[in-house]
Amino acid sequence: MASFFFRCTECDSRYNEDEIRLTCPVCSEQQLPGGVARGVLEVVLTDAPTDWPPLRFSEIEFLHRFLPLSPTSLLPAIPVGSTPLLSVPRLRRELEMPRLWAKDDTRNPSGSTKDRASLLVVAKALEYGVGTIATASTGNAATALAAIAAAAGRRAVVFVPASAPEGKLIQMLAYGADVVRVDASYDDAFELCMAACDRFGWYNRNTAINPFTIEGKKTAALEIAAQLAPEFADVVVVPTGDGVILAGLAKGFADLQASGLIDRVPRLLAVQPEGSAAIVNAIRTRSDSIEPVHSAASIADSLTVQVPRNALLCLRRVRESYGTGVAVSDDHITAASGRLARHTGVFAEPAGAAALAGLEKALSEGSVDRSENVVLLITGAGLKDVTAARRAVEIPAPIPADLESVAATLTDSRQES
Amino acid sequence: MASFFFRCTECDSRYNEDEIRLTCPVCSEQQLPGGVARGVLEVVLTDAPTDWPPLRFSEIEFLHRFLPLSPTSLLPAIPVGSTPLLSVPRLRRELEMPRLWAKDDTRNPSGSTKDRASLLVVAKALEYGVGTIATASTGNAATALAAIAAAAGRRAVVFVPASAPEGKLIQMLAYGADVVRVDASYDDAFELCMAACDRFGWYNRNTAINPFTIEGKKTAALEIAAQLAPEFADVVVVPTGDGVILAGLAKGFADLQASGLIDRVPRLLAVQPEGSAAIVNAIRTRSDSIEPVHSAASIADSLTVQVPRNALLCLRRVRESYGTGVAVSDDHITAASGRLARHTGVFAEPAGAAALAGLEKALSEGSVDRSENVVLLITGAGLKDVTAARRAVEIPAPIPADLESVAATLTDSRQES
Repeated sequence: MASFFFRCTECDSRYNEDEIRLTCPVCSEQQLPGGVARGVLEVVLTDAPTDWPPLRFSEIEFLHRFLPLSPTSLLPAIPVGSTPLLSVPRLRRELEMPRLWAKDDTRNPSGSTKDRASLLVVAKALEYGVGTIATASTGNAATALAAIAAAAGRRAVVFVPASAPEGKLIQMLAYGADVVRVDASYDDAFELCMAACDRFGWYNRNTAINPFTIEGKKTAALEIAAQLAPEFADVVVVPTGDGVILAGLAKGFADLQASGLIDRVPRLLAVQPEGSAAIVNAIRTRSDSIEPVHSAASIADSLTVQVPRNALLCLRRVRESYGTGVAVSDDHITAASGRLARHTGVFAEPAGAAALAGLEKALSEGSVDRSENVVLLITGAGLKDVTAARRAVEIPAPIPADLESVAATLTDSRQES
Repeated sequence: MASFFFRCTECDSRYNEDEIRLTCPVCSEQQLPGGVARGVLEVVLTDAPTDWPPLRFSEIEFLHRFLPLSPTSLLPAIPVGSTPLLSVPRLRRELEMPRLWAKDDTRNPSGSTKDRASLLVVAKALEYGVGTIATASTGNAATALAAIAAAAGRRAVVFVPASAPEGKLIQMLAYGADVVRVDASYDDAFELCMAACDRFGWYNRNTAINPFTIEGKKTAALEIAAQLAPEFADVVVVPTGDGVILAGLAKGFADLQASGLIDRVPRLLAVQPEGSAAIVNAIRTRSDSIEPVHSAASIADSLTVQVPRNALLCLRRVRESYGTGVAVSDDHITAASGRLARHTGVFAEPAGAAALAGLEKALSEGSVDRSENVVLLITGAGLKDVTAARRAVEIPAPIPADLESVAATLTDSRQES
């Protein structure tokens, strides 16, 4: 918060901030051909700091002390995690939840929580001297592996269903991954990747198979706890497909509890789409076994699995945390996606927005109280699936470039609060 | 870097990391129906830290001391900036530039450098008590304003050419902005926004008109200098449309020099597409006036302007820094976009990748030396313009889910280094 005055970059006139100012009132009178701006005002500071701040303790370095890496191993040169925990004041008012937070994992390098798992798996591949890493994915894990492998100079072979959203597909191809588009479901791609790793000797990053995916994802819990300390989270709301993100969060909180850094572990709330709710069904029917959903389908492609690979561990972790699960409809996810963007400035893919939909459902069921300290994990960025996002908005028709048309179109348009 | 062993989450067997391990060799023998994983291995830490790190000095707080905000003003609750400065080891080797860096501004909340300007403008609007903020934009500035205004609870009215990429359009609509799609160029949208602000009394965020856009963008320079300290940048490579990002960087370095925090200011290298190179043309012909490019066109939509609004100030700042300008072809931008993603893991929109294309051109011309400390400013995320990104990749055809098809498709695929 610096003191300042305005100075015209052309005539050097000075102005105080005594009114709302744009360009220099003197110079901007004279038009240049074509509309090049004249009299751009510059801010001149009068009390800027004269020393750099002291070197700060590296948060990253602290987190690394929880990661199963050898002392000599190097992380790929692409920072992952350390994403913001947002205080979402407008959403707090809307939901009457004064202690609501959003962990914005859309800020990861490839735009999803999966970067956390891929970072650690690629670091281990470097440690082991393995040249090729493979994974099956609905889209985000493949993209994440492609990005981190690119930064580390390793080959990524990724198996995705042919139906993966175009944005994710183009993103993983841009990073230079070998992309195997399988004319089948994610579950078939999963099995094919397993077999290919066996046959070709690749390092297998498949979720629920490689133990380091959970270790990577646990960093989200370490960060949430560090960002909230000395407070604790009561509930973390977790979009759930295979169940590995939830198991990763549980692991992170367990590691912190074992270290004495937190006293208690938050309740974990698993959110699945109604069309792909194998884990939530088991939670709600108190079953110990998983009934595959053979016709699994949802707008949240990242959560669409027939057989949640990490279902057993995920179930156990939800129960140990005294958490629960909710299933949400695609329409609810789409609506929540709009509310999240409009009230927080976070544009999430459907899987990410499912966290808000799940919270709303849990509030209506009474399994979460509005006074609790609740964290929404927003797992992926909205630009990853523009086709899904298009459902939540209405694209306006082009208008002629005149003020009357502007006035008319704005009168017609829905009013945002 | 923690010490650890593996424990099976089902049978509790323990294993050392004596070989590459996936699931528990005992439990995973027994298949569950449908492929639910058995015997997921968990990492057990043996030497995790037992204290939180000391509270760190807030980097954000330090940066705020350079911002023209009143002591009581609040920033919108959405962190902007503090993006990573990447050491890009593989690109360094490729270009034989041991001191090359990439400032990854794709990590901003709406995915571009424009968030920096919008944060400050919205903060000033809050300070002034203004309810509606308007801007014209090729796409990113509008999206950025929409995101920050959403977080702050202010109305954004944005004027964009009808040709703006769909991803950006959907993104700004998702944030709840009032979007005026003008059936005309960015330049016409610019004039229309000016007139609409006059008529309706809105606060005008137009670039080169509102002095706080430069102040917001200068934070990129503050961060680059802080991240490189005690070293200095010799050159910063800046994708250039209207010229405000470059002027903002110059302002940031100037503020730091005035504070005695840096001894010298880097040379600023302006990069424009050949089809929209008004500023670079002026630099290279040593002209003091700007010749509008009436048929401006480029794959880099963010850099496509007929009349660069901040051309005069930008020209002066390039010259004062002893910098220069280069124009690059659309094909070069597309190719650079692929190289950037494959060698760094940063997936940029064409405007962002133009920084790498510009550097390559400057190297071939001799205006940048390979031994210099050079920073590429990567201004926007690749997912913002999937149509452009599609040009740089080949989408593979779906294959049947069997190993023979995998082997065949990988033999055919291009080999990445």
